[in-house]
Amino acid sequence: MSTVDKRLEEMREKITNEVPSDITITEVTYEGPELVVYTRNPKRFAQNGDLIRQLASQLRKRITVRPDPSVLARPDDARDDIMRVIPEEAGVTDLDFHPDTGEVVIEAQKPGMVIGRHGSTLREITQEVGWTPEVVRTPPIESATVKNVRNFLKQERDERRDILERIGRQIHREEMSDDEYVRISTLGCCREVGRAAFILSTPETRILIDCGDKPGAEDEVPYLQVPEALGAGASNLDAVVLTHAHLDHSALIPLLYKYGYDGPIYTTEPTRDLMGLLQLDYLDVAAKEGRAPPYDSEMVREAIKHTIPLEYGDVTDIAPDIKLTMHNAGHILGSAVTHFHIGDGLYNVAFSGDIHYEDTRLFNGAVNDFPRVETLVLESTYGGRNDYQTDQEDSERKLKHVINNTLDRGGKVLVPAFAVGRSQEIMLVLEEAMRNGEIPEVPVHLDGMIWEATAIHSTYPEYLRDEVRDRIFHEDENPFLADQFNHIDGGEEERQDVADGGPCIILSTSGMMEGGPILSWLEHIGGEPDSTLTFVGYQAQGTLGRRIQNGWDEIPIGNGNGRGRGDTLKLKMDVEVVDGFSGHADRQGLENFVRTMNPRPEKVLCVHGDESSTQDLSSALYHEFNMRTFAPKNLETFRFV
Amino acid sequence: MSTVDKRLEEMREKITNEVPSDITITEVTYEGPELVVYTRNPKRFAQNGDLIRQLASQLRKRITVRPDPSVLARPDDARDDIMRVIPEEAGVTDLDFHPDTGEVVIEAQKPGMVIGRHGSTLREITQEVGWTPEVVRTPPIESATVKNVRNFLKQERDERRDILERIGRQIHREEMSDDEYVRISTLGCCREVGRAAFILSTPETRILIDCGDKPGAEDEVPYLQVPEALGAGASNLDAVVLTHAHLDHSALIPLLYKYGYDGPIYTTEPTRDLMGLLQLDYLDVAAKEGRAPPYDSEMVREAIKHTIPLEYGDVTDIAPDIKLTMHNAGHILGSAVTHFHIGDGLYNVAFSGDIHYEDTRLFNGAVNDFPRVETLVLESTYGGRNDYQTDQEDSERKLKHVINNTLDRGGKVLVPAFAVGRSQEIMLVLEEAMRNGEIPEVPVHLDGMIWEATAIHSTYPEYLRDEVRDRIFHEDENPFLADQFNHIDGGEEERQDVADGGPCIILSTSGMMEGGPILSWLEHIGGEPDSTLTFVGYQAQGTLGRRIQNGWDEIPIGNGNGRGRGDTLKLKMDVEVVDGFSGHADRQGLENFVRTMNPRPEKVLCVHGDESSTQDLSSALYHEFNMRTFAPKNLETFRFV
Repeated sequence: MSTVDKRLEEMREKITNEVPSDITITEVTYEGPELVVYTRNPKRFAQNGDLIRQLASQLRKRITVRPDPSVLARPDDARDDIMRVIPEEAGVTDLDFHPDTGEVVIEAQKPGMVIGRHGSTLREITQEVGWTPEVVRTPPIESATVKNVRNFLKQERDERRDILERIGRQIHREEMSDDEYVRISTLGCCREVGRAAFILSTPETRILIDCGDKPGAEDEVPYLQVPEALGAGASNLDAVVLTHAHLDHSALIPLLYKYGYDGPIYTTEPTRDLMGLLQLDYLDVAAKEGRAPPYDSEMVREAIKHTIPLEYGDVTDIAPDIKLTMHNAGHILGSAVTHFHIGDGLYNVAFSGDIHYEDTRLFNGAVNDFPRVETLVLESTYGGRNDYQTDQEDSERKLKHVINNTLDRGGKVLVPAFAVGRSQEIMLVLEEAMRNGEIPEVPVHLDGMIWEATAIHSTYPEYLRDEVRDRIFHEDENPFLADQFNHIDGGEEERQDVADGGPCIILSTSGMMEGGPILSWLEHIGGEPDSTLTFVGYQAQGTLGRRIQNGWDEIPIGNGNGRGRGDTLKLKMDVEVVDGFSGHADRQGLENFVRTMNPRPEKVLCVHGDESSTQDLSSALYHEFNMRTFAPKNLETFRFV
Repeated sequence: MSTVDKRLEEMREKITNEVPSDITITEVTYEGPELVVYTRNPKRFAQNGDLIRQLASQLRKRITVRPDPSVLARPDDARDDIMRVIPEEAGVTDLDFHPDTGEVVIEAQKPGMVIGRHGSTLREITQEVGWTPEVVRTPPIESATVKNVRNFLKQERDERRDILERIGRQIHREEMSDDEYVRISTLGCCREVGRAAFILSTPETRILIDCGDKPGAEDEVPYLQVPEALGAGASNLDAVVLTHAHLDHSALIPLLYKYGYDGPIYTTEPTRDLMGLLQLDYLDVAAKEGRAPPYDSEMVREAIKHTIPLEYGDVTDIAPDIKLTMHNAGHILGSAVTHFHIGDGLYNVAFSGDIHYEDTRLFNGAVNDFPRVETLVLESTYGGRNDYQTDQEDSERKLKHVINNTLDRGGKVLVPAFAVGRSQEIMLVLEEAMRNGEIPEVPVHLDGMIWEATAIHSTYPEYLRDEVRDRIFHEDENPFLADQFNHIDGGEEERQDVADGGPCIILSTSGMMEGGPILSWLEHIGGEPDSTLTFVGYQAQGTLGRRIQNGWDEIPIGNGNGRGRGDTLKLKMDVEVVDGFSGHADRQGLENFVRTMNPRPEKVLCVHGDESSTQDLSSALYHEFNMRTFAPKNLETFRFV
């Protein structure tokens, strides 16, 4: 018997001894980081609300209890009973029974009402029918991404269970090494922005944190080929941890599966869905630009199939010697500061990922409250000595001013925006300003992936800022569902209608005008001197957006990406720049993030910023807080224990 | 045709075009780093003394010319002709013909006379018989090690040629990567003394520098298992470079072959022989102490078979992008500072190995004169702020004083000494002092491996200090052959005779009294109050030597290692400590080594010293020379380009 099986046997004995004698345990098994307990008496389990919590704290494991298949009510009978228990206002839209695991997935418009106070309704369901309920939210705005991911996972459920069991046994293997060290190797995003990738390693375990591309430098990918990364084979990796879905952190994760990696990806549920959306778009863009994509869409599905979603604050065993906890990072939906507790009190490392320290309209500020962190790996995008951003209130005031001026003179406001994050932030500003009468209530047209990204945001309100979440939860006032928002889903015809119509606001991708429907919008309204092209995000060197900011007014048009037919458009629109809507902490925010940590880390690695930003920040933190700071290069390895 | 073969074909064409038209080239091939040219007209080649040098500088390769087997004189005829050409005083002791390569190995007491002025005698031999002569020195003192190594290499000649050809093709492969970096990973001897091991890596190449054990901590071996070392397979290593033969640098090299490594070891010829001697002794000691040795003696032979000896100053291609040059390190026989030139002018790294900066009696001081070194990896054994050693003259004066006092009162002087280095240094001091009448001419008995190590020293006088070398070369006054030196080869009986005899000096291993014949000597003369136990080397914590220095005088005896029967000896000898005979530079020497470099390196990694020594030295070099300095930990990786 393997040591894993021996340990499972011991757990089973412990549990059997612990539960009342009229509860029979039929099987105990691992699924990913969780311990799954099968019982012939699920109803008795459900009656005793504290039992599972007691077992979990005693075994120091996350525990799921499931009915033994032999004791399940028939799905048809169970369906009626379940619908009777759940209040009608919960808005159940789907029930999906899985006899092999005894689970029933309940999709509802108001998941809270299916769960009940402290889970009371869930327990009632189990007492009635024996089945274990699992609740997901019906997307308030239909999202093709969420739907596809859920359908795909349903379809692959059997294989996924095998994968989870294998991963579970891997996590709970016996430790092999009696050596002790903790190391971080840098594979990308050091003294540069883009291609985020780190290896966290102990004698026992190797974790990859992020695996992104470098926008504008498609051939500069993380150094995966070196021995400390995948040089010894992708299968030597224990786990991948993803801080957030942006492509400079996630783009090359599917590639790992092409290289033979077969392990888990730990990230939040919204990051999983956004990652899928953005990776497929990444393949699309590569194809359109005539580049050979590094992997095909099958690998995106592999990545999703191997994803184990974690909630903020859940402490999760991801290896025999490593516990992972994700915390809100305030950067985009589902973004996480990842905290690794290594050994039994041996060492703690946190990777900030991308963070926003202050609250924004959309998100609470980044969490920096950990019991212990000896080393912090900190992003430095705006770490330079002059990287102070405009106050968000000033930015909003300026945006409203630009809108009012434009609409007053009968023009339209065209805003190039990133689909994920920035667009939703602007939507919230506009919705409130209209509600308060600060700007006129005109239609706000959303083009490109913005609508889809917004749908994903409203599927996961738990991940939004308290106020927004509460509005969606309690007051049924989902701001994203406000009447003035219109999804452009009628193509060129609809755009022509909008262009021919009256004053309005248009949010469209891509954010740096390097492609996407924004170019169509330029053709439609670029010649209107009363309209305003309004930038709300950073425009990188070499992009059309930056060129227009620099005064270009002869825009090549014709085939949607500025190449080809050779026509040019004389840009007559007003051009305005409104700074301050960044998803990144500015220099002050980064310093505050470190200052307010308690205890503060001993060491900080400043990464994810250009050479001067990382060095400025490293030097400032050293002088201010007297900690050891570094501005690593790619391909270095630091040892901490 | 592979690119290697294509390049060989090009070389062959170039050479054919370059040599006079009456010289026919039949084959061009690689043997290790050398290009071997076979010709039907070896005599014509030999007539034109400059031709090979011209070709070498044009092709930027080390070139060896060999006769095509078809044109060779028969060995019997050749033997007579060769003996006629070589002056009789050369003292030829063996001729060994290898028809497959057209080489004849000539072993002679005076190799210089076989070579002739600028190689004139060698050329004359080739002109006479066609064969290519290769000269080795007849050991002036018979050395079992040298004899065994030479016989073994003769016996394995065919396989070795295959190995060398394979290595040669590997070195001259086409570069695969268009990436650029230079890294050093630390696998041992950082913030500690022992288990020296570093990886020097580029995108193309991975080199292991040293691979030693840690005396007194047999289970602490270099971190070979991590991915940047052998984790991705030992065959991913391009080359091993060995700085010197001491076990804390060489002990685990044979283990690499057990792990599947099949590549070259670059080191000096004396280091090869000493390494074999010490590794076999290492296995012996492990067996005696009941530890399972990590490899068996077969692996020592593999290591020797794969060794490519280099001379000081030879610039050698060891990979497509790396040239290695070894320079005298002044530490022990054959010890080398290793200089790596990477890329075509991209970067230069030097590893000091263990160094002695000032001249000693035995060796010239370490070389620190390089055209360029951007990063220096520097030993720090005596890098601590108080690690200043006694002046060698003072030490010698004290030693002579102790000897005179002891002999005057009719006692014996017993000196525990390391076999390699320290013993020969003391022998030179004694030989001179007796010649000058500063101490009486009494017998000096050499016990343990000292005699054998001395034999190896006198086989390679080129590696000794100018004065010693010249005495051996020109004046025929080999100091190691002085009459007073006596090899104890008669075991306990001879020791008893010596003990019963009159005043004398005894040098015996082991140097820290942890085993070896020194323990027998203690039993024989430990009870003599007129005799003196004289320490001339560092005694580590926990060794018997250190205990005696600390005042112990009840010595457990009986089975040769202080354990067992339980008898004790009352030590009545006088105990004296004479410092200053170290093979290591002291703090001043280390600073001087760096100070006098021109240009000085940009970065220095202080290694091979305990935590405070490396940090003291790192801090001192930073403040004194304003360079970036580090005291790395094991398992870190530094990137330089």
